Amino acid sequence: MRIAVDAMGSDTYPAPDVEGAVLAAQELSEQIILVGNKALIEKELAKHSTGGLKIEILHADEVITMEDKPANVGKTKPKSSMHVGMNLVKNGEADAFVTAGNTGAAMTIATLFTLHRIKHVKRPALSSIIRVTNDRTVILLDIGANTDSKPEWMYQFALMGRIYAQRALGLANPRVALLSNGEEETKGNELIHQTADLLQGTSLNFVGNIEPKDMIRGEADVIVSDGFVGNITIKTLEAMGSALFNLIRQEIKQDAIATVGALLARRAFRKVYRQIDPFEIGGAPLLGVNGVVIIGHGRSNAKAVKNAIRQARLAVAGQVIQSIAEGLSAGPISEGHG
Amino acid sequence: MRIAVDAMGSDTYPAPDVEGAVLAAQELSEQIILVGNKALIEKELAKHSTGGLKIEILHADEVITMEDKPANVGKTKPKSSMHVGMNLVKNGEADAFVTAGNTGAAMTIATLFTLHRIKHVKRPALSSIIRVTNDRTVILLDIGANTDSKPEWMYQFALMGRIYAQRALGLANPRVALLSNGEEETKGNELIHQTADLLQGTSLNFVGNIEPKDMIRGEADVIVSDGFVGNITIKTLEAMGSALFNLIRQEIKQDAIATVGALLARRAFRKVYRQIDPFEIGGAPLLGVNGVVIIGHGRSNAKAVKNAIRQARLAVAGQVIQSIAEGLSAGPISEGHG
Repeated sequence: MRIAVDAMGSDTYPAPDVEGAVLAAQELSEQIILVGNKALIEKELAKHSTGGLKIEILHADEVITMEDKPANVGKTKPKSSMHVGMNLVKNGEADAFVTAGNTGAAMTIATLFTLHRIKHVKRPALSSIIRVTNDRTVILLDIGANTDSKPEWMYQFALMGRIYAQRALGLANPRVALLSNGEEETKGNELIHQTADLLQGTSLNFVGNIEPKDMIRGEADVIVSDGFVGNITIKTLEAMGSALFNLIRQEIKQDAIATVGALLARRAFRKVYRQIDPFEIGGAPLLGVNGVVIIGHGRSNAKAVKNAIRQARLAVAGQVIQSIAEGLSAGPISEGHG
Repeated sequence: MRIAVDAMGSDTYPAPDVEGAVLAAQELSEQIILVGNKALIEKELAKHSTGGLKIEILHADEVITMEDKPANVGKTKPKSSMHVGMNLVKNGEADAFVTAGNTGAAMTIATLFTLHRIKHVKRPALSSIIRVTNDRTVILLDIGANTDSKPEWMYQFALMGRIYAQRALGLANPRVALLSNGEEETKGNELIHQTADLLQGTSLNFVGNIEPKDMIRGEADVIVSDGFVGNITIKTLEAMGSALFNLIRQEIKQDAIATVGALLARRAFRKVYRQIDPFEIGGAPLLGVNGVVIIGHGRSNAKAVKNAIRQARLAVAGQVIQSIAEGLSAGPISEGHG
């Protein structure tokens, strides 16, 4: 397997991106292609011992930053590391592309300029893989690619999420739910009601509406949402998690005895922190484009990049793209009817 | 001031409701009218020393439970403590009504059966008052009364929230923001774009879109949202808060040294917990109905009920209802134009 990694992705590129690639090459023994400014990558690679590792460099002239407007980068920076890396996947020279860069830019370049959509996919969806209680993982989508979604798009998000959960996350019959303001069928807005009607007619294991607290308890495996709502939800989870940890840290600092206490409880804290740390997953797929693209957080550290590469490997090994293509080949809504 | 309190509101009524009323009568020296089953209330009151306190009882035959369907209770239980209490407000015999009962039922009974809407109000909105970092409070609305809101409703939510923040929360010129998936003007869905256009033409101190992390930092005072999105957001905040505390508790329990550490850090933990504890606010207004109605959480304890009564007192003292009526008297959108 050959995995292309954007060396110019993270906020502090190329250090975490390159180190993550080195760690992945060590642990996963796959071929890694670092894409980006060759001189910078070489300089960074020299800091690590890479003997025996299968790491290549592919030069790309341009770098997309977090300040770049997604709507423009497709045309204004056609030689970016994202373009070059995704074209490797398009041309069969790599099996997946991993980036911790500008999410909107990655989406635009994938959808409109390089990989394009899988046939029959109406809208690609961004996903997030969340570790919830009891070490379960949940895939939530869409978390921001689309606003004002239509029921047919939501149906496809459910289908793509189900396939990802089966093929990459290893769940036999993932439970699909709609994120809503209550479990009852009467809850939800128009979009939720119409999507529920669609989902009930399919072979998807649709378990109904789910509230945030049950999402966090892992009471469904694939959670479908419009991108506006999904984005706010994921950002609320992150914001609350870090606000609480900051508050605890702050209060403990102001109290000498508590500081000693916190030192003693350090291991327990670390375990909790790891549980909610998005870097333990590292990245999640952009689903619906014709190639495996894993997008990580801009703040990714080396561990996050390594874990995003691991996620890419799971997606490739699980043949997620082929499965989605097959799942949608009978047309958008007919899958599983009757 | 006379504040009517639903004695049959909370999940474990009447104990927390009655005790909360006693605490409020002690601390606030206002007249409290406990509404509900007279025998039960008397029995509960006998457990407290109420000498010198201004507490009355008003009997109500029926009790609304959390299992009651909001759509039905208006007609099927016309003698409920909610009906009786809200009618006191309607008839000028009380200044406010406080309940920790079924939110949907309270809304229906207020809007359709007793108080009705303030003139020109298109849709009443449920709100939540959130304590955010730096001891600021933020009012978020709508958190569930309306789904598929229209821009004109959202405008009114903004206006009512602004008035509440000014008159009851004591903020001179509250900053109004729209909860969105990003700060940039290009972010948001159709509803957000159209509402932003409306808000920009008014004298409201509209500061644009706000993301969850900035909401938690208190970077706006009044945060407006459709009820579907607001409900999911508030539930995500609550779910993440309690999931994290549970995780920490669980990890600490499994580790003897951490248990000692946690004991030492107890005071710091309690301070953090109090910061995110919704019972410190106790309740938030149902805005847009023609009388002060404060709704608390079903899980309310006595402290929560007391604090909800305190919130009612702030709303009455600030003449929130009159201000909303005046604010909307020129018609739904003309307020502050030019």
